[in-house]
Amino acid sequence: MAILKGAAVIGQSGGPSSVINASAYGAIKAALDSDVITKVYGMQNGIVGLLNDNLFDLGQEDPEELALMKYTPSSALGSCRYKIKDPDEDETDYVRILEMFKKYDIHYFFYNGGNDSMDTCNKISKFMLRNGYEVRCMGIPKTIDNDLAGTDHCPGFASAAKYIATSMVEVYRDCHVYDKGMITIVECMGRHAGWLTGAAALAGLTGNGPDLVYLPEVDFDMDKFIEKVKDIYARNKNVLVAVSEGIHDKDGQFIVEYAVKDAAVDAFGHKQLGGLAAFLANECKNATGAKVRGIELSLLQRCAAHCASNTDIEESFMAGQAAANSAIAGVTDKMVGFECSRENGQYKCETKLFDLTIVANAEKKVPREWINEEGDNVNEKFIEYALPLIQGQTKLTYENGLPRFVHLRKVKAQA
Amino acid sequence: MAILKGAAVIGQSGGPSSVINASAYGAIKAALDSDVITKVYGMQNGIVGLLNDNLFDLGQEDPEELALMKYTPSSALGSCRYKIKDPDEDETDYVRILEMFKKYDIHYFFYNGGNDSMDTCNKISKFMLRNGYEVRCMGIPKTIDNDLAGTDHCPGFASAAKYIATSMVEVYRDCHVYDKGMITIVECMGRHAGWLTGAAALAGLTGNGPDLVYLPEVDFDMDKFIEKVKDIYARNKNVLVAVSEGIHDKDGQFIVEYAVKDAAVDAFGHKQLGGLAAFLANECKNATGAKVRGIELSLLQRCAAHCASNTDIEESFMAGQAAANSAIAGVTDKMVGFECSRENGQYKCETKLFDLTIVANAEKKVPREWINEEGDNVNEKFIEYALPLIQGQTKLTYENGLPRFVHLRKVKAQA
Repeated sequence: MAILKGAAVIGQSGGPSSVINASAYGAIKAALDSDVITKVYGMQNGIVGLLNDNLFDLGQEDPEELALMKYTPSSALGSCRYKIKDPDEDETDYVRILEMFKKYDIHYFFYNGGNDSMDTCNKISKFMLRNGYEVRCMGIPKTIDNDLAGTDHCPGFASAAKYIATSMVEVYRDCHVYDKGMITIVECMGRHAGWLTGAAALAGLTGNGPDLVYLPEVDFDMDKFIEKVKDIYARNKNVLVAVSEGIHDKDGQFIVEYAVKDAAVDAFGHKQLGGLAAFLANECKNATGAKVRGIELSLLQRCAAHCASNTDIEESFMAGQAAANSAIAGVTDKMVGFECSRENGQYKCETKLFDLTIVANAEKKVPREWINEEGDNVNEKFIEYALPLIQGQTKLTYENGLPRFVHLRKVKAQA
Repeated sequence: MAILKGAAVIGQSGGPSSVINASAYGAIKAALDSDVITKVYGMQNGIVGLLNDNLFDLGQEDPEELALMKYTPSSALGSCRYKIKDPDEDETDYVRILEMFKKYDIHYFFYNGGNDSMDTCNKISKFMLRNGYEVRCMGIPKTIDNDLAGTDHCPGFASAAKYIATSMVEVYRDCHVYDKGMITIVECMGRHAGWLTGAAALAGLTGNGPDLVYLPEVDFDMDKFIEKVKDIYARNKNVLVAVSEGIHDKDGQFIVEYAVKDAAVDAFGHKQLGGLAAFLANECKNATGAKVRGIELSLLQRCAAHCASNTDIEESFMAGQAAANSAIAGVTDKMVGFECSRENGQYKCETKLFDLTIVANAEKKVPREWINEEGDNVNEKFIEYALPLIQGQTKLTYENGLPRFVHLRKVKAQA
């Protein structure tokens, strides 16, 4: 395809992950190194920054500082949750984006995020195609939820998985020290897909894994759960459970909603809502009299860059690089994903291009056959899939005993 | 002093930490290496194991496996929360312990734990002295709370502090990515002393620290807190707060109790209690309309060995070694602590022996002059104190991408 000279713009969107900047840095570095890309701009807070003419010039950053992006968690360019309208209903945003593209001579558009971000990227790509403005649009995926269609896995999942599995091993050690026993419930993210909760089971490889693992792919039965816990507690005195925030009963009602039927009112008259882990822990206490503990991994699981998977970091970087290099070579309207093989325990991962249209409108769940029959744990198929992804430790720099993350200058872009 | 030939026994007690095994391993290794110590026994679940004749022979462990204790969190020997009686009231336990000492020819007693454990160690030591049984009793401190008297700091504090500060930096990054802003409350352990919560302020050295830090050493005023949060939110759109679980009002009532005045009842009629972080986050939401998030660091902060301070690991190991070597040299009835200097930014730490009687009955809090006048953050005196302690990263071994912790054989002891 023809050489396309012009500037590139990159944005990040949606919930952050430990490695979203590794991807962005891969694209930025490849773009900065390229002869055909004239300028590399960052969007302040994703598409919102583009709409508001709030871009910064990434060529003005110190290259050594910029390189720290590879190990820095959470969107360094700033993120947004802006939902772009369907162009058939309202073209305003698209017309504005086209205006900005022309103003800055932008012919490369990189968008780094999850499902919604791929949808945004897809809509912009299609609009520009229809309107005859040549811009090569590439999606660079990111989601700890691992629910993007097509790709073997998503950048970001593995680091969250490694953090969850590591924390499970450590919590197991903590819970099992007493002679009196304890029931511990750990709540992981994942409203519709159980990839992260399934990762808790990786801890079992150390001999310190959860007894029960509940994914939203299987209906949750409270009575059966309590019976299981009682049984394990009677035998082992200790029970460790991982649950997905999104578990629900056979009628589709989220279990966390059981907890808030009659929500607490505090001294100020405000409603107090507890989390799923606390709720289930309390139910277990009532059923067994055991000491219990509910732990919500909360934001920690998606930002714990100090415990990131080096495989994830390198693959994320590679995905970003592939996005830029493919675009330079002429590709447009695609998302970079991964194609992997795990034959005979040998893991191999290569980038592959996927149609944005397909990716934008699907959600990948844990296959039912990767979950045991009882629906209370994943099986070896899940372990085989996830284990290669969490290999290797991050190489982040420390200063004052703490991680040294990137600080960008963010020099305002000049058209 | 005279050479004392005989066996040694070591036990761990109280809540675990990331480095309690580093201390224990220091003592075990020095004891195993010694010519005068004939056998080294471990108590299964602390003093309860000694009372129940449940000891194992640490000489039977594989030395390479045993060495993994240095990097393994949570009492590898097992812990207990058994409160030994005052011997003036009930001698039963002491008589039984003496019987066990005689059965196994034990003349070295090492006890690894916090305030209560030092009290246990002290009582046993004094009883044996009064009854003329020669046993050298040494306390090896451990507490993430850092509230033991005498010693500059406690083994275990620094690793929890490093985990908290690291998590604060990462959570700051996560909370600050959106253009819409957010108020985040992070709850740290420490019911009476604010050392751990103060450690959250170390994150400020990276430029990504909390705006407000509330310790239990200062009375908490809800109205003032809300005003501060509103003010910072209006200016910065983002507020990050660290609070100690033990904050209380001027009447001594715990703030978490405000939340449970009228506790929720779930669908099963059970009372639901939320945590302090969730409660404060909810109050901030009601006051500002902001997006909020409450995060409880829970057990994670005391067992996250993957994020331990290497300074803490090495000092803990040194404390354990010093306990054994001092006892071999003739010392008894002491706790090993640290004496440190921080002159001109040069940190130096040496072990020092403290009277068990003093240690057992005091609690060290954060000095008021290390907290700012407003009482909503620590000042540079706290930072100077804590910063040297969190230096260096753990060197733990990984297997399958996960920490490889010790697995002890625990071969039953033979008298």
